[in-house]
Amino acid sequence: MKVRILPDNITVDAQAGEQLLEVISRAGLLIDASCGGAGVCGQCRIKIEKGEVSSELGIQQSEDEYKQGWRQACLSRIKTDLEIFIPEDSRVEREFVEQKHLAPKGQFLTEEEIANLNPDWKKEPPVQKLYVELPPPKMDDNRSDLQRLVRGLRQRYGLRRVSVDFPVLKRLARVLRENDFKVTATVVRTRGEDDTGDKDLQRGARKPKLICIESGDTRARHFSLAFDIGTTTVSGQLLDLNHYRSLATINQFNGQIRFGADVINRILYANKPGGMAQLQKAVVDTINEIIEILLKKTGVKRNEISHITAAGNTTMAHLLLGLNPKWIRLYPYVPVANIFPPVRAQELKINLEEWVHLYMMPCVSSYVGGDIVSGVMAAGIYKRPELTLYIDIGTNGEIVLGNQEWMLTASCSAGPAFEGGGIKYGTHAAPGAIERFSLDPKTCQARYQTIQHAPARGICGSGIINITAELLRLGFLDQNGKINLNIKSPIIRDGPDGPEILIAPAKETSIGEDITLREMDFDNLIRAKAAMYAGFRTLLSEGGLKPENLDMLMIAGNFGSYLDIENAITIGLLPDMDRNKIKFIGNGSLLGAKLVSFSNELLDDSEKIARMMTNIELSENMNFMDNYIAALFLPHTEEKLFPSVFPKIQQGRSGENPCVRMLKEVKA
Amino acid sequence: MKVRILPDNITVDAQAGEQLLEVISRAGLLIDASCGGAGVCGQCRIKIEKGEVSSELGIQQSEDEYKQGWRQACLSRIKTDLEIFIPEDSRVEREFVEQKHLAPKGQFLTEEEIANLNPDWKKEPPVQKLYVELPPPKMDDNRSDLQRLVRGLRQRYGLRRVSVDFPVLKRLARVLRENDFKVTATVVRTRGEDDTGDKDLQRGARKPKLICIESGDTRARHFSLAFDIGTTTVSGQLLDLNHYRSLATINQFNGQIRFGADVINRILYANKPGGMAQLQKAVVDTINEIIEILLKKTGVKRNEISHITAAGNTTMAHLLLGLNPKWIRLYPYVPVANIFPPVRAQELKINLEEWVHLYMMPCVSSYVGGDIVSGVMAAGIYKRPELTLYIDIGTNGEIVLGNQEWMLTASCSAGPAFEGGGIKYGTHAAPGAIERFSLDPKTCQARYQTIQHAPARGICGSGIINITAELLRLGFLDQNGKINLNIKSPIIRDGPDGPEILIAPAKETSIGEDITLREMDFDNLIRAKAAMYAGFRTLLSEGGLKPENLDMLMIAGNFGSYLDIENAITIGLLPDMDRNKIKFIGNGSLLGAKLVSFSNELLDDSEKIARMMTNIELSENMNFMDNYIAALFLPHTEEKLFPSVFPKIQQGRSGENPCVRMLKEVKA
Ligand code: FES
Ligand code: FES
Repeated sequence: MKVRILPDNITVDAQAGEQLLEVISRAGLLIDASCGGAGVCGQCRIKIEKGEVSSELGIQQSEDEYKQGWRQACLSRIKTDLEIFIPEDSRVEREFVEQKHLAPKGQFLTEEEIANLNPDWKKEPPVQKLYVELPPPKMDDNRSDLQRLVRGLRQRYGLRRVSVDFPVLKRLARVLRENDFKVTATVVRTRGEDDTGDKDLQRGARKPKLICIESGDTRARHFSLAFDIGTTTVSGQLLDLNHYRSLATINQFNGQIRFGADVINRILYANKPGGMAQLQKAVVDTINEIIEILLKKTGVKRNEISHITAAGNTTMAHLLLGLNPKWIRLYPYVPVANIFPPVRAQELKINLEEWVHLYMMPCVSSYVGGDIVSGVMAAGIYKRPELTLYIDIGTNGEIVLGNQEWMLTASCSAGPAFEGGGIKYGTHAAPGAIERFSLDPKTCQARYQTIQHAPARGICGSGIINITAELLRLGFLDQNGKINLNIKSPIIRDGPDGPEILIAPAKETSIGEDITLREMDFDNLIRAKAAMYAGFRTLLSEGGLKPENLDMLMIAGNFGSYLDIENAITIGLLPDMDRNKIKFIGNGSLLGAKLVSFSNELLDDSEKIARMMTNIELSENMNFMDNYIAALFLPHTEEKLFPSVFPKIQQGRSGENPCVRMLKEVKA
Repeated sequence: MKVRILPDNITVDAQAGEQLLEVISRAGLLIDASCGGAGVCGQCRIKIEKGEVSSELGIQQSEDEYKQGWRQACLSRIKTDLEIFIPEDSRVEREFVEQKHLAPKGQFLTEEEIANLNPDWKKEPPVQKLYVELPPPKMDDNRSDLQRLVRGLRQRYGLRRVSVDFPVLKRLARVLRENDFKVTATVVRTRGEDDTGDKDLQRGARKPKLICIESGDTRARHFSLAFDIGTTTVSGQLLDLNHYRSLATINQFNGQIRFGADVINRILYANKPGGMAQLQKAVVDTINEIIEILLKKTGVKRNEISHITAAGNTTMAHLLLGLNPKWIRLYPYVPVANIFPPVRAQELKINLEEWVHLYMMPCVSSYVGGDIVSGVMAAGIYKRPELTLYIDIGTNGEIVLGNQEWMLTASCSAGPAFEGGGIKYGTHAAPGAIERFSLDPKTCQARYQTIQHAPARGICGSGIINITAELLRLGFLDQNGKINLNIKSPIIRDGPDGPEILIAPAKETSIGEDITLREMDFDNLIRAKAAMYAGFRTLLSEGGLKPENLDMLMIAGNFGSYLDIENAITIGLLPDMDRNKIKFIGNGSLLGAKLVSFSNELLDDSEKIARMMTNIELSENMNFMDNYIAALFLPHTEEKLFPSVFPKIQQGRSGENPCVRMLKEVKA
């Protein structure tokens, strides 16, 4: 059977009875299936134009919609040839847009400031090119090629106990003779296959391994790759190992998105038949796409890349390596491994030369991954006496608290609201996503700004925070997240799900519908921010500390970069503290993967950090529950925790904004 | 185009212009192409029954033959559809026949005697199964699965610094949970990938590597494989690691035979386009066939096999591992490696489970291979004070002289005569090969015996030695290897190539031709035995020793097993020494591969032996040349070196044999 997909006009073959969602993803189209095809998120909405599917009414659908031919692709099975339409809001844009920083200067650290977070490390990449000129064999010196090379490396560089990767042997004889026994040997010193996190293994135990041999002196060009494998976004960087700099960075959505928006859904999907393989292939495809772009952009050749370092949360690490993450989400939350042996990139089908190995940053536990270890290392927290709180806001918010002596970590399941999930018109931070909002004092209509000024298609996570903070200050929203129906305003109205705020009218959007926020949406946001806040408050109290003891709050992650600090504090996502102590470091995970590519010493450090961290399981923590409930309020039930916020809310209510005043006039 | 092959009645597709030899080997038929398709050996003789080839007259062919449609397959290219006939004498039998021992009892060591050659080693296989019952994860002990396992192995077995093979991780989580965290871990301690023959690495440096994990206690069944990869024959043995015994042994011709009979031709073939891959595939196919038979025969399951150890000469090791042997045969004879990192059996396409690694016995130099190291280790020469000469007779005769303190090794290129090569009617030791010969005193006709009493198809190497010795004693052959035309005998006659001896008349053979030996054939044999004899005489003199200093002469190898010692001394292949000091140990290479599979200690020893050996390059040795020329005589130019042989020859000549007497009568 054939399925024609509009407006793309792509036709794919399919079997009767096949799930439509699978057919679509086989066609290479990214569908935004946050629930991983469970039928609950409603994001896989498509329209049947011709033909028939067997399907049921989705729980996110009205009967009207259903009658018009709208279906949830995950709930539809093919019966006949089909022609289907996929609306823009069901899609994930393939390319990820890095936004200009919105927060005040000074909070965003410059490249130099970031570099200074972790100073004084030894520049000695774990992968090195070593050039030797060997004496050609003679009758009285006819040892094997390998022995000759090993002797040469020992004499010239003092390299001892070098091991050899099998593929080197295959090319060794030819390469030695191509240029009169003058060769460049590539040697890697990342963890051998001999570390399983056993405490016995300490620094210095790494042995050099010969992974590549080239004729002549190729030292002048030597590159590697650093990757952050995020649940939503994959970022790759091409690094020049000779000059300790990055040449280009590319961000793309993780191809796994179509199998679920968050790690839980990915894990569930992994345990469907064939699921693991699909998930692994999806992220590897994304990595390969990024590599192609990086090579093209920089002119670096594939065979000039010697190594790849990747950091990701524990589930992402498992899925990339093909390890079953099933038990990560089941009590008592056990990953297969936290420290991974290096693996040949080609074994994962990563499109690099056969000698390239992938080094995965070590993880701490099921929910504190290598991305956090990597970020904490990059930020140098483990080197300073100051107490730092490091947070990565997202579906799984990750939190580290500590300094050079101790570190506590935790992960809190905030839900997908920060990524636009669970919000009716929520969307990823892609072009057309609404991120800023205010009321026009003249018309009292909403004014909004979208990413890249494209027609509005939805509201991204940071947009929801900004809108919520503004509505709260205006008094349109009360501290429980309820819409104040006493205010008469053109943007407050009754919708099918109860009171809602109109953000963008249908005529201005690319989806042909009004974009609104319902009370249900605010609820989801409040639960998400409460989980984050309760998370770091719990960690602080585990350490016998309070928010005011913090010397620094570091915000990492893509989401963090779009965050308006003032608004985030206003809704109670961040603690109400000295704004100057809050810093954005961007993609800390990628930063760490980069640094580790430049320095053996930092590589060692990252494993030390993983061992140093003590993980607090929040879901088991009574304290966390209390903190969570106390935070289900805007900004918080305890007024004294947000001294700068409460007055503003009061002020907003007592109102100087003409639109709010207008209401009073009406009421009066 | 189609090629139909008779009498097999197999039809294969082919391209116009393709070499017929290649098409035949693609059909799975083993052709005896000693010269590797160079057109010189003439063994690839086939008959065109229908159709046309473009071809030239082979140098081994008469014009008559050519007119009848006989062609050399390697010189023929396909022009039309074909029907061809492959005669039996162009084929290599696939199955190898192990003969009953022919030599007097006492010279052949019994299994027990062989076991006693290398006594007192510690029984501790390099691959072990370790059973552990792990505590299931709890909230306060939720380390990763891998860390749990490693901790368990450390606590229960004191295993430290264990490394983990990547595939183990993939199955770890599932297997742990299949049987309540009771598992069997398979751990290998063969060389890590960290030994390149560097002297730094000494005993004890081997670290355990986790290669497999199974649920429950599987220790009761644990097996491994030992292989000898010979140029002609591959022998495989299935070993029971729990009871230190071998369960079955299978010998088959090395599938590489069709690409050349000896290492030189294989190396030449390897450097044709695609040659390496074909050679590697051929020997791997042979190994896989042997494995299938072994599994079937013993009822052992594939997943109960944990390891494979192989020994072979340096070229065989290179070809099996896919390393280019090109420079082995070029001055100054440099192999790619002498010590090889372990390699995953599946990487070589060996049909075993993915966790199985192949350990290749270390080599000494281009021409002293792992087969010799293995044999010397098995024979315990390195442990005894007695001076032992160890020889493996074959196309490349290999020689070791030494004791517990020192060892000299050499390899001499004897040519293919011992394998039946370079002899017009020479053949492998397969059914139908003539191996024994005498004159019927009544009829004065030849009496002969073939292997398995099959109709004669040729003469095998040991047969040629036996016939030559007998003819020499009879006086039919003089000490220069010339046929004595003064003797009138029904078996002496003038052939197309000059004088020849009729061994089997056409009507008794399976090839429909008289089987004869020509002076040229005796010449080839004399050159071969002279090279061997000169070889060990040179080694002795390098050590300042003489044949009479030898405490023991050990003969290894398949060929050796068929050797009649008395006859071998008569022609001057072996020194004329106390017969009781001469021992056959059979396939020493396989024996060593077996022992190493049972003992870590012997594994270490084998690497020590490889380092202990000093190789003498005979082709560069003036002494060798002199010794060689002196040995080009039957048995030798120096009468005093063969005190027991000369009288017998004299006696034969002065003759009591009625057939010789008959001649005298005629002459008289
Ligand atoms: S409802 Fe279909 S993917 Fe979520
Ligand atoms: S002559 Fe054809 S293979 Fe030797």
